[in-house]
Amino acid sequence: MRVTALAGGTGAAKLLRGLAAVLDPSALSIVVNTGDDAEVWGLHVSPDLDSVMYALAGVLDSGRGWGRADETFRCLSAMATYGAPTWFGLGDRDLATHLVRTRGLRDGHSLSTITAGLCRALGVTPRVLPMSDDAVRTTIRTPDGRLGFQEYFVRDKCQVEVIGVDYDGAERARPAPGVLDAIRGADRVVVCPSNPVTSVGPILAVSGIAEALRSTRARVIGVSPIVAGAAVSGPAGALMRARRLPVSPVGVAHAYAPWLSTLLVAREDAGCAAELAALGVTTVPTDVMMPDAAREIALARAVLELA
Amino acid sequence: MRVTALAGGTGAAKLLRGLAAVLDPSALSIVVNTGDDAEVWGLHVSPDLDSVMYALAGVLDSGRGWGRADETFRCLSAMATYGAPTWFGLGDRDLATHLVRTRGLRDGHSLSTITAGLCRALGVTPRVLPMSDDAVRTTIRTPDGRLGFQEYFVRDKCQVEVIGVDYDGAERARPAPGVLDAIRGADRVVVCPSNPVTSVGPILAVSGIAEALRSTRARVIGVSPIVAGAAVSGPAGALMRARRLPVSPVGVAHAYAPWLSTLLVAREDAGCAAELAALGVTTVPTDVMMPDAAREIALARAVLELA
Repeated sequence: MRVTALAGGTGAAKLLRGLAAVLDPSALSIVVNTGDDAEVWGLHVSPDLDSVMYALAGVLDSGRGWGRADETFRCLSAMATYGAPTWFGLGDRDLATHLVRTRGLRDGHSLSTITAGLCRALGVTPRVLPMSDDAVRTTIRTPDGRLGFQEYFVRDKCQVEVIGVDYDGAERARPAPGVLDAIRGADRVVVCPSNPVTSVGPILAVSGIAEALRSTRARVIGVSPIVAGAAVSGPAGALMRARRLPVSPVGVAHAYAPWLSTLLVAREDAGCAAELAALGVTTVPTDVMMPDAAREIALARAVLELA
Repeated sequence: MRVTALAGGTGAAKLLRGLAAVLDPSALSIVVNTGDDAEVWGLHVSPDLDSVMYALAGVLDSGRGWGRADETFRCLSAMATYGAPTWFGLGDRDLATHLVRTRGLRDGHSLSTITAGLCRALGVTPRVLPMSDDAVRTTIRTPDGRLGFQEYFVRDKCQVEVIGVDYDGAERARPAPGVLDAIRGADRVVVCPSNPVTSVGPILAVSGIAEALRSTRARVIGVSPIVAGAAVSGPAGALMRARRLPVSPVGVAHAYAPWLSTLLVAREDAGCAAELAALGVTTVPTDVMMPDAAREIALARAVLELA
């Protein structure tokens, strides 16, 4: 079974680790959000690509949910001495990834080529595809102006009012090589439990990707990142409210309705089934929390074994 | 007394630490070789600027003679995983310097402006001036082609035959702001015990600097980096031979003769006085080795107290 997943960072990384353990990993393709890429200390950082890659390589820091395990921050301390911003905490080992990526981009290589090289070096077998090799920047509109996603999320810790969210550059961005084929040629498409507004939203905004999801013959199955009225992690709640989406599986289904077949939701959210049905989405209550590897694998099986 | 020093890396760093301890540090200006700057992992590395800056900040690794003390190499290990070259061993704390410099250059700032900012942040009071804000690259000619200085020195550990040395770009390079004035306006100019061919040679090759040394009213005093027929450290011997200079204080004096007044030499080299006198250079035998801070200060005093 060929599976293609749409992925953001933390939550996606867990489910993908489960899928890679259950599937033939070479049958797994992952289309990853790059809307929250940022420049830090002159380096091109792709937080979601890295979380996915590190998770699949077994080197993701599971406590933080991002960056590398067994990490140190000695360069960061030295950067602080130089007065550089330190709110985006790049670790010493993690830096290598950004150095290789930044140099590769400067030398004219595409983000997808560079990502493939990093994955090869880390022994990651699934195909990790940036949604686009072109720059898309998720921007948060606030009463005081526009913020880059990482400024909003990491620097300001989401403590600002959100008026709206833009995906700058998405209209002109082309899907990275392999993205549309991975969606069209899949037997199953999985929408990971990622933020629908700032993780999956940017992917859908890239020209041609929503259309590929509409036209694929694969069954498209999502996992709700919202449980009992709140995001499992991250700012999905506030961002969904800003988009006037209910902070519930119903809001998630609204975001994906034109092409979503099935949404796995927490058992306590089973009551939303009628509203989802009205959107043409089948509700499957299950254990969507993934506190450990066993539950990651269990959820991956649940996604793959749906009739 | 205003003192201006010409400096390479390791040996210079020691004498400069002594000078800064003895002098009012704000009266010390240092013109530093940038001919051995290199790009490593996409970062602009200025080894001599860094050795001088770190020494004056008290954070130079005294064992290695370069890089920062109390250093780790975790990014380096991760770079190895990615197949990046690791022969130039950038440490985790050291990386911050190169990140700040690289970003500053990319943003259009000059190397001298960036260097001043780094020095300020590290609490370095003497004025540390790159010889030029323009690129000069010391290149080693070998029977098998040309090598960048760091390829010759670090990667190949000087184990290749040297046919000649070029200072690519030196003719077009302008002295950095303040360099000529620092030489012309000094009460004393000190040529640190650095490699005459690849540390001081590139400085002298920058247009206008040799002329400023010829015309300054300051007494110009050198310290021989050659003791008893060999370099105290580094490849000065092989490079002087390639330039057909005797590997002795006489060779050093030859390289600087048009403007050098006095050369401090090791006591065992006192016998070269007649040959130096023939070049117009006064020989002062003294303790030129600097195994510890006390000897750094003693040599600095010897340089400054010459009648």
